[in-house]
Amino acid sequence: MDVMQELLDYKKIADPKINEFFDDKIKEIEDPNNFYSKLTYFLKEYTGRGGKRIRPALVYQGHRLFADGSNLDEDYIKELIILSIATELKQAYYLAHDDYIDKSDERRGGPSMHKMLEAWYMTQDGISTEDAIHQGKSMAILAGDLANTFAENIIFKSTLPKDKKYAVLERLNNTDISTLHGQVLDVHSGITPEMSTEEELLNIHLLKSAVYTVESPLLIGAELAGANKEQLEILSEYALLVGKAFQVHDDNLGLFGDEEKLGKPADSDLKEGKKTLLIIKALEKAEALERNVIYYCLGNQDIDSDMIEDVRDIVRSTGSLDYSVNLAKNLISESKEYLNQLEDVNPKAKEFLLAFADYMVARKY
Amino acid sequence: MDVMQELLDYKKIADPKINEFFDDKIKEIEDPNNFYSKLTYFLKEYTGRGGKRIRPALVYQGHRLFADGSNLDEDYIKELIILSIATELKQAYYLAHDDYIDKSDERRGGPSMHKMLEAWYMTQDGISTEDAIHQGKSMAILAGDLANTFAENIIFKSTLPKDKKYAVLERLNNTDISTLHGQVLDVHSGITPEMSTEEELLNIHLLKSAVYTVESPLLIGAELAGANKEQLEILSEYALLVGKAFQVHDDNLGLFGDEEKLGKPADSDLKEGKKTLLIIKALEKAEALERNVIYYCLGNQDIDSDMIEDVRDIVRSTGSLDYSVNLAKNLISESKEYLNQLEDVNPKAKEFLLAFADYMVARKY
Repeated sequence: MDVMQELLDYKKIADPKINEFFDDKIKEIEDPNNFYSKLTYFLKEYTGRGGKRIRPALVYQGHRLFADGSNLDEDYIKELIILSIATELKQAYYLAHDDYIDKSDERRGGPSMHKMLEAWYMTQDGISTEDAIHQGKSMAILAGDLANTFAENIIFKSTLPKDKKYAVLERLNNTDISTLHGQVLDVHSGITPEMSTEEELLNIHLLKSAVYTVESPLLIGAELAGANKEQLEILSEYALLVGKAFQVHDDNLGLFGDEEKLGKPADSDLKEGKKTLLIIKALEKAEALERNVIYYCLGNQDIDSDMIEDVRDIVRSTGSLDYSVNLAKNLISESKEYLNQLEDVNPKAKEFLLAFADYMVARKY
Repeated sequence: MDVMQELLDYKKIADPKINEFFDDKIKEIEDPNNFYSKLTYFLKEYTGRGGKRIRPALVYQGHRLFADGSNLDEDYIKELIILSIATELKQAYYLAHDDYIDKSDERRGGPSMHKMLEAWYMTQDGISTEDAIHQGKSMAILAGDLANTFAENIIFKSTLPKDKKYAVLERLNNTDISTLHGQVLDVHSGITPEMSTEEELLNIHLLKSAVYTVESPLLIGAELAGANKEQLEILSEYALLVGKAFQVHDDNLGLFGDEEKLGKPADSDLKEGKKTLLIIKALEKAEALERNVIYYCLGNQDIDSDMIEDVRDIVRSTGSLDYSVNLAKNLISESKEYLNQLEDVNPKAKEFLLAFADYMVARKY
């Protein structure tokens, strides 16, 4: 099972649907020269740029797990694919606001939303640099809000039955509550001097990432295909474990990843002051001098590459990197045990999800 | 018909429901000491503070217009009231983001959301002033996002039939698209040197204010009560005219209103650089020297009260204030003609809405 190829195949059919949705939205605007039209275009570029479309692909695979694809007509599958891109628009919403909050300048190998809009305002006559910066941020907030609204609009526009659409909308609403809950805890912990415990951190990963990245898309698909309550519960267990492992691995990449493949610097987590498991465990095991190095670098925008390398050395030598890598692997093993409890499901979808779990902690970006 | 008394009466039954909703949300949180719990509490205080609950009251009156209240059981009315507060939470969402964008420090006689959160972070040990300011803004964005999510959550939690709830959710989604469309145009026009035309400005008022303040709440209520398509169209015409007049009047208050009653300074529109109808018309009619005074003051944070009084004098002497006041009155007259086309509706609700139209351009705050 080549997970990357499967994801790439789905991306090829999902991306044109994303473009079509935005093109329709732009066509609806009476005055094509106004800034709302331009902002919608910026959002189209931002959403379409890079990204692996993991969430839409999981909607599809969650559905496939419980539906025998051979009975489904083409129109239904088309509607399912369109609906799946709602999860990608939700992702654009979270990222636009998140990058403003984290002061991140880059995203998916290009500028983040507020930086992209700031750069545009910089080119306009009669607008000061200070105003262009604030305007970039303001429009990024609104672009995020718009992406969120569009995500739900995709569901309303779908030709699927209303009761099915209602279930998807309710799932998305509960997903948002969880994601915002996690995001608020995460952003707050980034500014306070206290360290989170491992348990608190994994709870944030669960709320902030696992639910919207893995659980919600899979369950949306599975519910649409008519999975029963017990099946949904097992799938949820699998999904949350994979999602937590994904976030632990993501934090590992955030310090040890390949910058070119990531599309962003591999020191930004450290400079932002993110209290990842790598940092928490290293602080637990390190000696006083090493702890000082970490505290000095954490949240310090001015550290050079030598300092960053010092922090990496401490994270390695204390065994913190191994701890974090092993934790992610163990979560994945556990997740697969849950998935294997599901019988009488589509073997191809099951095979994909088993391989997907491994992929989520093996990916380089 | 005493509109203010009717609004006050509705506020008295709606406000406890707002508090109950938030208290339930806070109770659901496992760790009552975490910051998500605190942020939800901040949002409760912010939503409950001041405000006339116009939008929830309009949901109720829109429903009453087409439903004979005497047949309705108490539980149904209770559900309708709970559902109506979704519109108030949407308002909190818009205001939290809007005040960040407009750099407004005050709202409803207290600090705006980002200022309130900034002040809290200022009291915390080990957090720099710069970090507290950014943290205040970041949390205000998330508080707005949360209010939006909670607004929809109220609908999902309602015991009303699913098809009714689906209709409300779809109406809210279309409302958000309109509001964001208008907000994007408005925020963009605030930074560009060009003046909008009267037509462009009224279009922004329609998209940004009239739809979510008057049309959407009324139609939500009317649809729930089973109004037919033709009735909804007439009600929509009434609502959009009242909504536009409301915003024109709001801009008039923004320069000529009573600061104490408004709960915010009556020069903030000018200092923010808002291109209101007052400004657009004054620039059209004023002489070169007077135009210079307006251009100097517009968007200038450092002007003193003498300069503001000079601008007020120009707006009066050019007839721009009269023009704006008359336009609002004419929109209201037209709105009432539409409402009078509705026959066989509840006379008390109709009487309220006729008086409400007048109230919206007579209110002092």
